[in-house]
Amino acid sequence: MRTRFHEGLNQLKDKLLSMGGMAEAAVEQAICAYRERAPGLCQKVIANEALIDIAEREIDSRALDLLAMQQPMARDLRLILAIIKSNADLERIGDQAVNMARRVVGLIELPPAELPTDIPQMAVIVCEMLRHSLEAFVTGDAALAQRVIERDEHVDRLNQEVFELVERTMETSPELTRQALRTLIIARTLGRIADHATNIAEDAIFWIRGTDVRRNFEIAV
Amino acid sequence: MRTRFHEGLNQLKDKLLSMGGMAEAAVEQAICAYRERAPGLCQKVIANEALIDIAEREIDSRALDLLAMQQPMARDLRLILAIIKSNADLERIGDQAVNMARRVVGLIELPPAELPTDIPQMAVIVCEMLRHSLEAFVTGDAALAQRVIERDEHVDRLNQEVFELVERTMETSPELTRQALRTLIIARTLGRIADHATNIAEDAIFWIRGTDVRRNFEIAV
Repeated sequence: MRTRFHEGLNQLKDKLLSMGGMAEAAVEQAICAYRERAPGLCQKVIANEALIDIAEREIDSRALDLLAMQQPMARDLRLILAIIKSNADLERIGDQAVNMARRVVGLIELPPAELPTDIPQMAVIVCEMLRHSLEAFVTGDAALAQRVIERDEHVDRLNQEVFELVERTMETSPELTRQALRTLIIARTLGRIADHATNIAEDAIFWIRGTDVRRNFEIAV
Repeated sequence: MRTRFHEGLNQLKDKLLSMGGMAEAAVEQAICAYRERAPGLCQKVIANEALIDIAEREIDSRALDLLAMQQPMARDLRLILAIIKSNADLERIGDQAVNMARRVVGLIELPPAELPTDIPQMAVIVCEMLRHSLEAFVTGDAALAQRVIERDEHVDRLNQEVFELVERTMETSPELTRQALRTLIIARTLGRIADHATNIAEDAIFWIRGTDVRRNFEIAV
């Protein structure tokens, strides 16, 4: 019985990783569409959202089955809960990739404008945060998860820089308002994705250490 | 044993409601600060975030205790999971109220600008969504939760209207760019809060009906 349970748990972890790969691909495609002004790629991101939703459903359903199957040990219980929460965050990352793709569609309908923001570089950091938060799940590496959490502040700073730059651009070159505004929204969407990656890293630490890192709180299970 | 378990479950529901009240109060205070240009109220929202975090910790800890205590029945298991997820959403609503309060601080440092956006009206809708999503939890009213989900589209439309209005304002009156941009961010924060209320409503329906409304998927527990 225990063996079947742990087999199921390992499969659940694999499913979460594969869903993480789908969410990351969606973000990368949306950013590639931004960089290369490729509307076809945006449509691909929008169409693929349904696949991410199916994966979320399957993970939730398997997690519930495991919880209902038998009374898990404290550590396994924490892992299942962490997976259920991270699963919701991954699905929302998929939603944000779609939001980003829609904004990119609007942006590339406008004449190109050279704004000195580095959205692709910001996306590199955000995608790495996402990848590392999931890697922390597989390897049980709390230190790696901790580094993801610390990087969120960096993304917040980059977002604030984009805000200030967009503001200056619109004041001095109002004719670029439309492009600047859409660039701002795209940067903020990346910020939301970084928030979700941070949530996943927090959930990973909660599982690994049994500690609620969000505020260094020990949960006695 | 079952009785003690159900007592614990009822207490958990009460705690979630009381946390919901705190999150709603934070949003209302941030909006009141916006309407009345009251920086002191913004500081109150920022200071109260810690209390919401403490409430979240307590709910998570009690939910885990209940799951570890005994093997819950399918319906109770779904309720505990729905509470764990909604708890995370409420905490994030608290974070968004703080973000909003910070933006309001920035906005009221600038000269007042009459923008034809109706942020307070948008806030009324969003707070009602939040209140109804939690009411659906207490009363087991899936139809009420469904109406919350449907209202999210309305908030999205209002947000799009604010976006277009802000865009026009900045193009025609670049001297109002700073105020318009901060108003846009405040409206988008309300949009994020509406998203969280929608998540809570979806979790309530999942508990009540055993149906994953997010995409009409039956989970067999």
